[in-house]
Amino acid sequence: MSIFKYRVQAIFISILFTLISCSKEKTSSPTLSSSEISNNQHPSLIITKAGVEKIRANLGSIPIFDETLEKVKAEIDAEIALGIEVPIPKDYSGGYTHSRHKRNWQTLQKAGVLYQILDDEKYAKYVKDMLMEYEEMYKTLPVHPKTRSYARGKLFWQCLNDSNWLVYVSQAYDCIYNYLSKEERNKLETNLFRPFADYISVENPQFYNRVHNHSTWGNAAVGMIGLVMNDSVLIDRALFGIKGAELDKTAKDNDGGFINKDGKAGFLANIEEPFSPDGYYNEGPYYQRYAMYPFLVFAEGLNNVKPEYKIFDYKEGVLLKSINALLNLTDADGDFFPLNDGQKGMSYYTSALVTAVDISYKYGNKDPGLLSIAKEQNRVLLDDSGLAVALGIKNGETKPFNKKSINLADGPKGTQGGVSILRNEDIELVFKYAAQGSSHGHYDKLSYSLYEKGEEVLQDYGLARFVNIEQKGGGNYLKENKTWAKQTIAHNTVTQNETSHFEGKYEIGSKHHSILHYFSSENENVHVVSAKEDNAYPGTEMLRTMAIIKDEDFEKPYLLDIMKITSSKANQYDFPFYFFGQVLAANFEYNTPKTLKALGSKNGYQHLYLEGSAKPKNNNTKFSWLNKGKFYSLTSVANTNDEILFTRIGANDPDFNLRREAALMLRRKNTKNTTFVSIIEAHGNYSPVTESAVNSNSSIKELKVVIDTIDYTAVTITNEDGKTKLFITSNINASKDAEHILKINDTNYQWTGTYYFK
Amino acid sequence: MSIFKYRVQAIFISILFTLISCSKEKTSSPTLSSSEISNNQHPSLIITKAGVEKIRANLGSIPIFDETLEKVKAEIDAEIALGIEVPIPKDYSGGYTHSRHKRNWQTLQKAGVLYQILDDEKYAKYVKDMLMEYEEMYKTLPVHPKTRSYARGKLFWQCLNDSNWLVYVSQAYDCIYNYLSKEERNKLETNLFRPFADYISVENPQFYNRVHNHSTWGNAAVGMIGLVMNDSVLIDRALFGIKGAELDKTAKDNDGGFINKDGKAGFLANIEEPFSPDGYYNEGPYYQRYAMYPFLVFAEGLNNVKPEYKIFDYKEGVLLKSINALLNLTDADGDFFPLNDGQKGMSYYTSALVTAVDISYKYGNKDPGLLSIAKEQNRVLLDDSGLAVALGIKNGETKPFNKKSINLADGPKGTQGGVSILRNEDIELVFKYAAQGSSHGHYDKLSYSLYEKGEEVLQDYGLARFVNIEQKGGGNYLKENKTWAKQTIAHNTVTQNETSHFEGKYEIGSKHHSILHYFSSENENVHVVSAKEDNAYPGTEMLRTMAIIKDEDFEKPYLLDIMKITSSKANQYDFPFYFFGQVLAANFEYNTPKTLKALGSKNGYQHLYLEGSAKPKNNNTKFSWLNKGKFYSLTSVANTNDEILFTRIGANDPDFNLRREAALMLRRKNTKNTTFVSIIEAHGNYSPVTESAVNSNSSIKELKVVIDTIDYTAVTITNEDGKTKLFITSNINASKDAEHILKINDTNYQWTGTYYFK
Repeated sequence: MSIFKYRVQAIFISILFTLISCSKEKTSSPTLSSSEISNNQHPSLIITKAGVEKIRANLGSIPIFDETLEKVKAEIDAEIALGIEVPIPKDYSGGYTHSRHKRNWQTLQKAGVLYQILDDEKYAKYVKDMLMEYEEMYKTLPVHPKTRSYARGKLFWQCLNDSNWLVYVSQAYDCIYNYLSKEERNKLETNLFRPFADYISVENPQFYNRVHNHSTWGNAAVGMIGLVMNDSVLIDRALFGIKGAELDKTAKDNDGGFINKDGKAGFLANIEEPFSPDGYYNEGPYYQRYAMYPFLVFAEGLNNVKPEYKIFDYKEGVLLKSINALLNLTDADGDFFPLNDGQKGMSYYTSALVTAVDISYKYGNKDPGLLSIAKEQNRVLLDDSGLAVALGIKNGETKPFNKKSINLADGPKGTQGGVSILRNEDIELVFKYAAQGSSHGHYDKLSYSLYEKGEEVLQDYGLARFVNIEQKGGGNYLKENKTWAKQTIAHNTVTQNETSHFEGKYEIGSKHHSILHYFSSENENVHVVSAKEDNAYPGTEMLRTMAIIKDEDFEKPYLLDIMKITSSKANQYDFPFYFFGQVLAANFEYNTPKTLKALGSKNGYQHLYLEGSAKPKNNNTKFSWLNKGKFYSLTSVANTNDEILFTRIGANDPDFNLRREAALMLRRKNTKNTTFVSIIEAHGNYSPVTESAVNSNSSIKELKVVIDTIDYTAVTITNEDGKTKLFITSNINASKDAEHILKINDTNYQWTGTYYFK
Repeated sequence: MSIFKYRVQAIFISILFTLISCSKEKTSSPTLSSSEISNNQHPSLIITKAGVEKIRANLGSIPIFDETLEKVKAEIDAEIALGIEVPIPKDYSGGYTHSRHKRNWQTLQKAGVLYQILDDEKYAKYVKDMLMEYEEMYKTLPVHPKTRSYARGKLFWQCLNDSNWLVYVSQAYDCIYNYLSKEERNKLETNLFRPFADYISVENPQFYNRVHNHSTWGNAAVGMIGLVMNDSVLIDRALFGIKGAELDKTAKDNDGGFINKDGKAGFLANIEEPFSPDGYYNEGPYYQRYAMYPFLVFAEGLNNVKPEYKIFDYKEGVLLKSINALLNLTDADGDFFPLNDGQKGMSYYTSALVTAVDISYKYGNKDPGLLSIAKEQNRVLLDDSGLAVALGIKNGETKPFNKKSINLADGPKGTQGGVSILRNEDIELVFKYAAQGSSHGHYDKLSYSLYEKGEEVLQDYGLARFVNIEQKGGGNYLKENKTWAKQTIAHNTVTQNETSHFEGKYEIGSKHHSILHYFSSENENVHVVSAKEDNAYPGTEMLRTMAIIKDEDFEKPYLLDIMKITSSKANQYDFPFYFFGQVLAANFEYNTPKTLKALGSKNGYQHLYLEGSAKPKNNNTKFSWLNKGKFYSLTSVANTNDEILFTRIGANDPDFNLRREAALMLRRKNTKNTTFVSIIEAHGNYSPVTESAVNSNSSIKELKVVIDTIDYTAVTITNEDGKTKLFITSNINASKDAEHILKINDTNYQWTGTYYFK
């Protein structure tokens, strides 16, 4: 991506200026006159005339492309054999008509490229015939009968899905454009495409004129069809939003997000606002993945048809940077970290990421690491970018995509907190200190999840939804998403007085963000991130410092977690660890109740059963468990007044919408200032085949806080062999160059920078 | 294995006679005089002098052998570099001294074969040095300090592990026999091997003189060292048990099994008793796997040193048949079905099965299907049989090991019930109607578990134990094994009046077995097994007929389950379905309690929480769930008085020893005769990557009992397209040739055999 970074800034500024000036002109008429638009060659969006020729010339010698082509051909031939079905819209997601129209958009897009690549008219005819059926139906189609959406579509229950349809179908239309007669094109454009584009935009500004992933789809849909139709009005509307649209700034969508609080709209605003300069998308990777497709295909189309816009350079090349960020937001298996509302299991194997990787490769700096991901994906786009990837692989240019520790700032200018990922060997920590994340944000400041080799060690619950599974609330968000998944107690962070951060209110949460204290990954063995949050609970300051430490005296890198809380009044702090698997051992005696009751009545606590309780017996609370053949231990500095609770999700869940998963929770009552210090070790393994348990015990003998002042927190870690290490973090001065001297037990420790470890 | 079946019977009988006559002679002195024993060539047990030459000649050209050799060499070289450790015994399983001595036996055995194959003295020296350290320690070693075992060992807490040690170490001794001087051999035999063999046999007859997997290890250990030492007393004791040992016939072992109720003992009795003629091992596959190694290595040694015994022909070749049975008792991933006490995850990748597959290949009929399993195992024994497998693979003889529907009779004569496995496409049903299964048996007559492609759909809980994980009860059986895992309610079968089969008493259960009614797998699309149980609840007869049906109108084969109960008095019947995953939908309204309480106070019920309850609303109870991306539906013929309970395991589990897993339970109260009829469908799929839900609904519109008499039960299955199929099972006449005529709703159905389906 560095090519973009170092482009001559003057060019960039001039383009930006063009875009801004266009934006200003567009109040009364299309800003781009027809003469400004490139000659109307087809196809031109994602597959170009030149690309088609190159693809045809290489066919049979580019294995990954050839295999993808073969599979897609088989799939589409089977669809064609089944015949065309264009049912009257009726269902929510997961229902028949929804699924059918969704499949149709996919089939149309694929049939279009097959026509171009294979030059077989049967595909063009199929696309034409189906489009004509849509034309016939659409011209008299009322709004979709299902009423739940804030922006009902026509083919689907929400404009969002109508937009999905148009983004794909524009590509199909582009592919058969020259196959159709002028009259046929006229018919389709007049009765289907233009009214379709108008419906999802000017007729639904509350959907279209926002900064939101929904709107991105809408913008791209309008822009894509505009590019094919050579319609500058539509292209303009796509880039800059609806001219003069006035929206209620206090209105909210179905997810509780503001419709359009600050009046920004259009594709460029949708790039500008949600992406940070690092390419982090404010809603999190799950929604970025969803939004990525329209961002990229429209950008690609725009790049091909209007290269003078240099869209891939926009905001210092943020679109391509965002793909790198997104790939870094995956675990070892390629699954996205389920920050905010994210369905677990979504991964870079999803087709949107095939698009992302291929486009990033072709239009970026030909990063050979992307080829290794393309290989894992085992398919490419059947277009110009897919060809580029296939040729790269064929020419042996593949290199591993190395994911390292990375800090991704959040916010349009990168100043609204962020997300850090610390990696060492198979251990990955995902630490969230970001902004609210729009309507899909959770109330979990300074929360984290921990992975080993792609397996969750301490989980983020993700969303409470079964996407597209009709039996579960129509496949939409379940009420438990609000009552459980978004609540603070559902996350590995501190809940104060059994109340969520920002009172669990979007209006408050969306005003604030945490602040990075420091991030350090220079030392190969010690990666540290530290961030603070002062607004989640007014009057309470939280500073969390998390380090992944590779110490030669330990089998695997461990997580050191220091959560320093300073408050103006006494509170109760709950500090959960959402582990998986089987309890192995504890160094405290616990009681298990005869009957299970809910731990509380609100803010997520109503969904937790109390399965056991204890008091610490030692200065350290030690707890071990076994999950999927691996051992884990938590060692936590204990306060004799602490309570230790065993909880399980599932109370007050009358539809069995929640997963019955466990946590160990530390509870510290009636406390103003305090510091939670813990270490999570992954260690050893167990195989049910060999039945041998290797290194099944924690290696930590003692964890101790030796200093805890406003300026410094210092802890010692003593292992079972008696070797002691000292970690000191600077709580105030985050300068990399600061010189520190600290006396602990008559020894002076002197160092430069944010932390000390030895 | 057919080679054994068709051997001239006379030869077999004469051998058997020899063995029997030996047995009779052995009351006062060794029956096999030294002169009868083959010349004392070494090595001769599992690797022979001729085998070594052949291996050396082929090295470098037999990939799977070469790779195994390389790995083993690397492993042993690393061990040798670490030095020898022979600690004073101290710990239970999972503890340091236990693990160390276990590793030593493995290292010794491997170092022995490396010496033979590589002809490098360093391995022989290592074996010798370690044996000398054992000799030094053993000669004054007291009984192991841990007292929990009914038969304490010396190196380990139980004689069983001492026997494991000797089985392996005998092989090591055999390999370096000729490397040692006569004095060295004399020292080892006098101070280590002979007292060791005596300790685990004559000094612990309660361990040695039984029919039990423990004793098999003991017998093999004594026999193996006897073969190396050319000691006919020991060989004799191995084959026939301890002469004149008198044991308390009412004594029990730690697992609650009788020590020696009927006085049988010795290796041959251990083949005779637990194996059915089909090769089913009475304790189930998990323990068969464990016992397999000593059975086979001692048999192999005996075959090599005393080929005249024709041990592999004994009991019509049952040892090799049992391997075929064992491989058939695995799911699609090679995991053993966890019948009785079985730890999940144990599979044919375990080293004992490498032994089994290799020996079965060499000494059986060179089944090319075994080569495909050897390939999956990706290693072979470094001996004559491993060479045979490696050569078979090298020569391209591999064929798939096709697991089909199979019925395995239980009992020494195959007359004590059995286990059936029905397979069609990816669906596997394991139906258990066996005898008690010795001390490791569960009280679960006519129970089943269901698999799809190696994933559990409806589970058998398995055991309540974490084998070798010291933190969990020393790695031994947990108390919940008795209070939960063995109880009837923990299984997918009927519990009457909240009491387990046979009152959960081993004394009663071990007297009885279920009876096969019929098994039919001739029809490619319909596989059926039917069995009855009259003794689990005196006065109550249960006949369960289970069919896996591949019907063109359904996506996948489904399970039809007909449980017919006839009782002399009114009872409560509980009928659970232990499913996994997330509840999707139900056609009945259920209530979920605010607090969770135990469902009962004993017989396993004390471990179940009641999570919900309902009454059927229709003639059919329908319940769907989602697990690991697949949909499942239960359709059950409902009685309006039925109760439907949602349960979860975990109540009264103060150490978190149990997995928190769910069941749906049908409860029918105050009923004498009744029939539970259900269908379990696997259907569709869901991918979190594509987020598309395919075929997520049951295809069954109605399931109906149309006839239910003493003679016949008939059910109709109507699918969503309105197509109806009729299944009739004959409840009395199990003849394959019987002609039946049955009038149902004025239509006459006529068929030959046990069931009708159309």
